[in-house]
Amino acid sequence: MSAIENSKLTVVGAGAVGSSVAYAALIRGSARHVALYDIATEKTEAEVLDLAHGAQFTGSSDIIGGSDISVAEGSHVIVITAGAKQKPGQTRTELAGTNAGIIASMMPQLIEVAPNATFVIVTNPCDVLTVLAQESTGLAPERIFASGTVLDTSRLRWKIARRAGVSISSVHAYIVGEHGDTEFPLWSHATIGTVPILDWVPLDGQPKFTTDELDQIAVDVRDAAYKVIQGKGATNYAIGLSSARIVEAILRDEDAVLPVSTVLRDFHGVDGMALSVPSVVNRRGAFPVREIAFSERELELFQHSAHALGEIADSLRG
Amino acid sequence: MSAIENSKLTVVGAGAVGSSVAYAALIRGSARHVALYDIATEKTEAEVLDLAHGAQFTGSSDIIGGSDISVAEGSHVIVITAGAKQKPGQTRTELAGTNAGIIASMMPQLIEVAPNATFVIVTNPCDVLTVLAQESTGLAPERIFASGTVLDTSRLRWKIARRAGVSISSVHAYIVGEHGDTEFPLWSHATIGTVPILDWVPLDGQPKFTTDELDQIAVDVRDAAYKVIQGKGATNYAIGLSSARIVEAILRDEDAVLPVSTVLRDFHGVDGMALSVPSVVNRRGAFPVREIAFSERELELFQHSAHALGEIADSLRG
Amino acid sequence: MSAIENSKLTVVGAGAVGSSVAYAALIRGSARHVALYDIATEKTEAEVLDLAHGAQFTGSSDIIGGSDISVAEGSHVIVITAGAKQKPGQTRTELAGTNAGIIASMMPQLIEVAPNATFVIVTNPCDVLTVLAQESTGLAPERIFASGTVLDTSRLRWKIARRAGVSISSVHAYIVGEHGDTEFPLWSHATIGTVPILDWVPLDGQPKFTTDELDQIAVDVRDAAYKVIQGKGATNYAIGLSSARIVEAILRDEDAVLPVSTVLRDFHGVDGMALSVPSVVNRRGAFPVREIAFSERELELFQHSAHALGEIADSLRG
Amino acid sequence: MSAIENSKLTVVGAGAVGSSVAYAALIRGSARHVALYDIATEKTEAEVLDLAHGAQFTGSSDIIGGSDISVAEGSHVIVITAGAKQKPGQTRTELAGTNAGIIASMMPQLIEVAPNATFVIVTNPCDVLTVLAQESTGLAPERIFASGTVLDTSRLRWKIARRAGVSISSVHAYIVGEHGDTEFPLWSHATIGTVPILDWVPLDGQPKFTTDELDQIAVDVRDAAYKVIQGKGATNYAIGLSSARIVEAILRDEDAVLPVSTVLRDFHGVDGMALSVPSVVNRRGAFPVREIAFSERELELFQHSAHALGEIADSLRG
Repeated sequence: MSAIENSKLTVVGAGAVGSSVAYAALIRGSARHVALYDIATEKTEAEVLDLAHGAQFTGSSDIIGGSDISVAEGSHVIVITAGAKQKPGQTRTELAGTNAGIIASMMPQLIEVAPNATFVIVTNPCDVLTVLAQESTGLAPERIFASGTVLDTSRLRWKIARRAGVSISSVHAYIVGEHGDTEFPLWSHATIGTVPILDWVPLDGQPKFTTDELDQIAVDVRDAAYKVIQGKGATNYAIGLSSARIVEAILRDEDAVLPVSTVLRDFHGVDGMALSVPSVVNRRGAFPVREIAFSERELELFQHSAHALGEIADSLRG
Repeated sequence: MSAIENSKLTVVGAGAVGSSVAYAALIRGSARHVALYDIATEKTEAEVLDLAHGAQFTGSSDIIGGSDISVAEGSHVIVITAGAKQKPGQTRTELAGTNAGIIASMMPQLIEVAPNATFVIVTNPCDVLTVLAQESTGLAPERIFASGTVLDTSRLRWKIARRAGVSISSVHAYIVGEHGDTEFPLWSHATIGTVPILDWVPLDGQPKFTTDELDQIAVDVRDAAYKVIQGKGATNYAIGLSSARIVEAILRDEDAVLPVSTVLRDFHGVDGMALSVPSVVNRRGAFPVREIAFSERELELFQHSAHALGEIADSLRG
Repeated sequence: MSAIENSKLTVVGAGAVGSSVAYAALIRGSARHVALYDIATEKTEAEVLDLAHGAQFTGSSDIIGGSDISVAEGSHVIVITAGAKQKPGQTRTELAGTNAGIIASMMPQLIEVAPNATFVIVTNPCDVLTVLAQESTGLAPERIFASGTVLDTSRLRWKIARRAGVSISSVHAYIVGEHGDTEFPLWSHATIGTVPILDWVPLDGQPKFTTDELDQIAVDVRDAAYKVIQGKGATNYAIGLSSARIVEAILRDEDAVLPVSTVLRDFHGVDGMALSVPSVVNRRGAFPVREIAFSERELELFQHSAHALGEIADSLRG
Repeated sequence: MSAIENSKLTVVGAGAVGSSVAYAALIRGSARHVALYDIATEKTEAEVLDLAHGAQFTGSSDIIGGSDISVAEGSHVIVITAGAKQKPGQTRTELAGTNAGIIASMMPQLIEVAPNATFVIVTNPCDVLTVLAQESTGLAPERIFASGTVLDTSRLRWKIARRAGVSISSVHAYIVGEHGDTEFPLWSHATIGTVPILDWVPLDGQPKFTTDELDQIAVDVRDAAYKVIQGKGATNYAIGLSSARIVEAILRDEDAVLPVSTVLRDFHGVDGMALSVPSVVNRRGAFPVREIAFSERELELFQHSAHALGEIADSLRG
């Protein structure tokens, strides 16, 4: 009997986000085995069938799924996308409460069938849900974290790349803080190739970036989700890819630096709240990079993020 | 000035199918440039943004789109997914009429902005729409064809692979005829590795396939779409991958054998109707393989497919 | 502590073949960890450095190596390419004896550091070396097999694909028997798409294949290695890719059908000799497909292969 | 007739480097068509056969080649690896003279058959050969450049990544100047994630980098080629991958920032010499990034590089 143990990913939640995570993971070969778990039996089985029907075109990965928790058995990574959407009239804190309840009820079962899994929380508000789930499960902070601003960072780089006339892979910039309204770019460290962003001269004759323009880009990135949701009712494709990428960093033990959101301890004045900062992601989980120098303004914004989210978390800890 | 001309794909229709085609194509790098075109401006722009926001994770392909036909300019391949869905009480022929009208109205504009494009019709009923569009545009039959049973064939192989205990890449079998109720597998040519399917002995101790079982598999594959639609309201992921695969065969000039649906001329007794048969797909389009021997039963089923669809087409030609 | 265990491949032998296997495996991401082992310390370390220096362009796989057997520790797959080349005046049997000795001396150490590994023998004459190594180690036949005619099969399909005007992925044909002079194609099962090879009509106006032409193709494929060796002194690139492909089928537990060479038991009249036949390859090893019907002529050739190799093996069992 | 024109790469020189470039390009799918050109007919044809024999495992790319210049016809990119190796007793300048002559004699023919190609010079000393070839052909400097320190930069990042405990994709650092003895890292811009290299704290408990250590890393990287050559007689694998990567940036019109070597004009005090600096690479060629601030020490080293190479170039301009 061989000792080869192939990687297993379970995606919890068969909505637009969860099924897009599974689709992206299958196409990219992020994991050898993918499972989709949701209590909505018929919907989940239909998504699994639709995903499986493309098997001729997706390498050696396979997909199973259903409404029985056993489909998650032995997972190495579990991505949680389950949760309610914000209803008209519902406050963000109320939404957080509903989704915190959903996750709290699932975690014990998930940990039982996959005791060694690393958990990635995608359900929103992901930072608040992460800190609550980490506290209630007692899992080490590196083993339960949110996808955070990985998506926002991709949005930021895409905008900069197009304007600067370079490949997105040559743009080095991060969004940090909340995955939401108080997030902000670490402009003090943003470079194109090795050039600080404000010094970059586009090859196509466009002018340099100005600080006003950077402010506008930050606003556009922060509000991008609203624009997508207004037009199509949800966001699912980019978060699907972002999540698949995080999964790969874990399963391939990459030590990749990604801005995920872990519960921070004594980090630039933040303690006990989950916020995104560049973190080393490997098979043991996510580890915030402590050496990043923030400018005074960035420090202020970061602590503001922590404070805003902390209040929501507090109100839910009850 | 360099002569390099990078490949361009336009997907027409920004619904679940069209955006899944674009998503799969971006992740796989099927084309260097992808455009999404739909008259629903806001929805289309939202899909494009959501797709573009994952750019950090999708190689060198880019995506644009909108409701102006100019986004399709210079395309090498155009995949058409636009169309109405079947409404309650609406007959299949009525649906065909509606969608034929939609496609007929778009084709002249698409040909104007992309005079050298190859067209792949995914909108259903794809076989009927292909024959009508080929007739109305006068394009060479190889340059306008339907995705046909590429998807159904993937479904078939997936089912066989799991039951036989082999990789899907080692299953050689095709669904031919209509992409719909009268489709059927070419069992007489189905092999696993080099073994005729009825002779295969699974390694896991399962019994051989029986002809009854093959009949049931054929029924399951034929009805797979209904099962998916019942559970999730649509099918989009597997058709997204199937379409991306066809696009690659064209853009990379692969000469790959794929069961797409072209207007057949004097093919096993069928003339002037579009049906799927294994076809060589390359940059010039799709060319049915004429040497495939059908059993008597298969011939009968094939001509039945042609007859059934021919009646619908006739009623729409007015 | 997470349970994720990433796949490890060790390549034994740092010559042109071994280092090409490692190069192909790194570029394709066949295994997360690749090790190169050879007693020639300086040469091996230089190859490892040269391979590692491309790390920026090869995903998340890494490479180590050296002349200490510990580099192979915990491997899931071990590909053996070590061995002497045929010297002028040396008979094939003498070469087999030398290489059998080399492998026999290494196997106990390799099994000690990697007790659960599957072994793939690439060193020539690979069939003879496999049967001797299987006997001396007592490993289950599925766990120690030769790359066999996987390479010859790729050569065959390449020639057919070009002549037929189709993608190589649409050519289904196998070389079986010895990896060497007595090998032959299973023409009775060779198809293009679903069409028997002799019925195929190329799209470009070329005539059909004739049986004479097929005979010539078989000769060309058999002698291809000689032609390459005459021109460049060795073959390494195609065998590198073939080996990497076999490794993937094992590590990803693919159940792929590949013509590798295992010690056969009561297989079409052959017993106790290793010959290539289409086999299901997965994480447990390689399992010959017993249901393949041979024509009378093919049966004769196959048993001739077994007989020729059996004599060499016998003379070496002493 | 479709307008799709698939990308073509020609590799000039069928030695270890040239054939490794072709191998890497085929496996990665860097170009749809690959050609290998060398005056050594038999050797070249053997390399082409060995490369082609792996076709079953390398996607849709194909390979041709031979000693007739027509194999390069219509190429979009031409990578030049042809040239003599340094002989015992031969000075570096003598070697440069020999190889400059070889390239000078080939360029007119190559430009004739591929008038729109971009040229990448890999033959050493690549910087000197680039400036001479650019002058003699009169091609725009962006269209003829050397692979330069793309390889050295990969070596540098690999060493840093391992020591820092992060993925190589999270290391941002460049080697600039000569591809050879006077090269140096731009330490002033080297970061890990967003952290300046000297501030990085490895997660595994290792101490921070010291400036002494960085100096040693720079020396090791500079001398890496010697170490590989001493052990295996040549370097070929990493340069093969580096070259394939550059080819992709051109053919896919990526605008990727890569440290290639173009003839510089008024660049940090250098004029008329080819040296590597981070450059934007796209289908029009390579464009040095002018905004990179060098420290005083880096400026000195850079101008020293230019001076040393300028003398060799001068002596060869006669």
